[in-house]
Amino acid sequence: MLEQLKQQVLEANLDLPKYGLVTFTWGNVSGIDRERGLIVIKPSGVEYDVMTVEDMVVVDLHTGKVVEGNKKPSSDTPTHLELYRQFTDIGGIVHTHSRHATIWSQAGRDLPALGTTHADYFYGTIPCTRLMTEQEITSEYELETGKVIVETFNQRQIKAKDIPAVLVHSHGPFAWGTNPHNAVHNAVVLEEIAYMNLFSYQLTPNLPDMQQVLLDKHYLRKHGKNAYYGQG
Amino acid sequence: MLEQLKQQVLEANLDLPKYGLVTFTWGNVSGIDRERGLIVIKPSGVEYDVMTVEDMVVVDLHTGKVVEGNKKPSSDTPTHLELYRQFTDIGGIVHTHSRHATIWSQAGRDLPALGTTHADYFYGTIPCTRLMTEQEITSEYELETGKVIVETFNQRQIKAKDIPAVLVHSHGPFAWGTNPHNAVHNAVVLEEIAYMNLFSYQLTPNLPDMQQVLLDKHYLRKHGKNAYYGQG
Amino acid sequence: MLEQLKQQVLEANLDLPKYGLVTFTWGNVSGIDRERGLIVIKPSGVEYDVMTVEDMVVVDLHTGKVVEGNKKPSSDTPTHLELYRQFTDIGGIVHTHSRHATIWSQAGRDLPALGTTHADYFYGTIPCTRLMTEQEITSEYELETGKVIVETFNQRQIKAKDIPAVLVHSHGPFAWGTNPHNAVHNAVVLEEIAYMNLFSYQLTPNLPDMQQVLLDKHYLRKHGKNAYYGQG
Amino acid sequence: MLEQLKQQVLEANLDLPKYGLVTFTWGNVSGIDRERGLIVIKPSGVEYDVMTVEDMVVVDLHTGKVVEGNKKPSSDTPTHLELYRQFTDIGGIVHTHSRHATIWSQAGRDLPALGTTHADYFYGTIPCTRLMTEQEITSEYELETGKVIVETFNQRQIKAKDIPAVLVHSHGPFAWGTNPHNAVHNAVVLEEIAYMNLFSYQLTPNLPDMQQVLLDKHYLRKHGKNAYYGQG
Repeated sequence: MLEQLKQQVLEANLDLPKYGLVTFTWGNVSGIDRERGLIVIKPSGVEYDVMTVEDMVVVDLHTGKVVEGNKKPSSDTPTHLELYRQFTDIGGIVHTHSRHATIWSQAGRDLPALGTTHADYFYGTIPCTRLMTEQEITSEYELETGKVIVETFNQRQIKAKDIPAVLVHSHGPFAWGTNPHNAVHNAVVLEEIAYMNLFSYQLTPNLPDMQQVLLDKHYLRKHGKNAYYGQG
Repeated sequence: MLEQLKQQVLEANLDLPKYGLVTFTWGNVSGIDRERGLIVIKPSGVEYDVMTVEDMVVVDLHTGKVVEGNKKPSSDTPTHLELYRQFTDIGGIVHTHSRHATIWSQAGRDLPALGTTHADYFYGTIPCTRLMTEQEITSEYELETGKVIVETFNQRQIKAKDIPAVLVHSHGPFAWGTNPHNAVHNAVVLEEIAYMNLFSYQLTPNLPDMQQVLLDKHYLRKHGKNAYYGQG
Repeated sequence: MLEQLKQQVLEANLDLPKYGLVTFTWGNVSGIDRERGLIVIKPSGVEYDVMTVEDMVVVDLHTGKVVEGNKKPSSDTPTHLELYRQFTDIGGIVHTHSRHATIWSQAGRDLPALGTTHADYFYGTIPCTRLMTEQEITSEYELETGKVIVETFNQRQIKAKDIPAVLVHSHGPFAWGTNPHNAVHNAVVLEEIAYMNLFSYQLTPNLPDMQQVLLDKHYLRKHGKNAYYGQG
Repeated sequence: MLEQLKQQVLEANLDLPKYGLVTFTWGNVSGIDRERGLIVIKPSGVEYDVMTVEDMVVVDLHTGKVVEGNKKPSSDTPTHLELYRQFTDIGGIVHTHSRHATIWSQAGRDLPALGTTHADYFYGTIPCTRLMTEQEITSEYELETGKVIVETFNQRQIKAKDIPAVLVHSHGPFAWGTNPHNAVHNAVVLEEIAYMNLFSYQLTPNLPDMQQVLLDKHYLRKHGKNAYYGQG
């Protein structure tokens, strides 16, 4: 069942150590089959260098029950499921503790757009979620993590498609995309701009965000109707 | 004698350069056989790329005498022995000068919990020891280093099992665990959070520690009685 | 047509990931045949590990039209063309988002000469361009990017040969040289000094520029009429 | 002539890229045969990956003339020669632009001892030289660079053997040792502590130097008459 998606999710997981986004087993990628209402996700706590396609776990989008697989799914599965349910146009999700995106998460700070590297992928500030309440943390924590991400996007009126990443306060980043591979791609870019913005602020502490017109230009030449970047 | 433990200690030592925790011969890992009251430790000043299982040195836990081995044990052996004697539930110890943990040690600062990466492994602030006295430094220095670590944990009422690492002032980190492999694992995590916390404070200089309830949640979902992380 | 130049441009492009200057397809190198008035440039959005000499695109220096090649040229082609037209003694151009040069670009700051590493390659401060106007950004953006670079060099009376790089505000660096290989060489040096200067200012915030006489000495012992560095 | 020394110098030069201390051809190592009054040094501007033992150049200690070799010696040869003439107990010298040691050089700051990593190799603060005069820079610059290093050690009453490295103002580090291999070893340590001290000061801006008694302890347990580190 879902052999092609499992293969994609496996490969996207293996890209995490390749791009230096994870240490040990920290991090997980999932993908979704929207028609069947099923997601495929990494098992919990399995080392990347022994992971195979058979280790991938299939989980029902609505019930959260394991439908196929011998292993327990990632403990972050309820977060992934909530994001898939609320962000209905995304096809893959990745969670990491990549160093610099996590630095911003730990500092509890939004990551503003300071240059065209950011603008080529993210259409504005990447938000950091609020602190979670004691009630949220001690009840269904992983589900609530998903809910606070969605709340953040709703309150700020951001579309998941336009800003395909979030910083979870005191934790680390989630990124997403059209499929698992694209989600990892966005996670790599996020880490890159998290590094660069950290030190741009050290050079110029009160640096303003980039010009809106330049943000529009770069985002839309790659993502808008009239995109002209690449061979497409 | 202790062939299996020697092999474990060798492999854990070889993991130090693999994870980028050491330069040259800086760093050493040991393991203990509690029943026999013997530890196995790296020899002093031997290069990692020529080290073999025969180079491992067996030392008596109580007398500190070499029981087996042709080489001198690590000069830090008395520190390891003191930790094994006082922290009776640990099975492996590692000492490195890994860059970012050493940066905090040199600065003489505790490493507070700022995020869930920390909370997944360390149940609170990782302490930095006090400056040693002239008497301690000029007498049995390596033994006294162990004693000041133990004093730090006793005075702050920290259990070695809950915070499996320490920063030795003006020196560098020691980490420990259930066995040599696990000790190195904790040393890698320590280096990772030492890096991230350094720069989180640069983004937000007066950053408060993470919420206690979130620290509890993450530590206990991996380490408590009701742990649910991994396949165990 | 231009087989040798295509090969040089391909190799120079492949040097970008080798030297750690690019992530994904970010970055492009071109070279020029001045006699024929043609440039060779990387195609847009093609991965480095599948790029071949056949993918290189030949573009007319004056009309900007594709003369040979099945793929679309880099979207930054109009910037390259403008630089070749105005800086008539350069033979290769490279654009990257290399981390530390981009940090300075995002901060909107010139990169001053603080040491001999800089002086060995760049005869003074590497300028950062001004912010572009809304009109420039929304019209022929890539061409205007080239124009603002040229304007910067003209207004500051800098010769392109003496300072073979620029920081484009809110964007990233362009570097150039006598040929594509030499342009990449200069881009590597730029990244190196961008890293070092960032942290030199952190050690000494009000650090003055290096002595003019030392800048002269180092630049001219490698580049002047009486150069005596190397085997030449 | 001097085949063994040439081989040592070649290998020590090849260690520079291996340890990440150099970019391109920046950096050079030499060694000396004190009995014959000859040094062996890297040629100027030759790439490390094509360098062979035949490229090594033999130079007379006193006249500075090339005694053997088809290539021009490193342009820094007069600096090496002056150091060998004045520091009569050293056997190898290395010059690099390694990133973090160069950051301190550019900032014009001494590198103080903040921890035992430093104390294991350097018996106190590593000095940064004064700015050179216009006269020194425009006359025999490379020789004068050596002289200002020697002046620094003499004025501060430092023995070259005790502090086997220096930071040349606005330039970069020189390190030395008992032979070419040992000189490179010290250059690696210098780079490591240059990195760590930079960020230790960021954590604690007014950090005092380490305790003198701890500096004594660590330096002397490895280097003094009663050294007990290693297998020796």
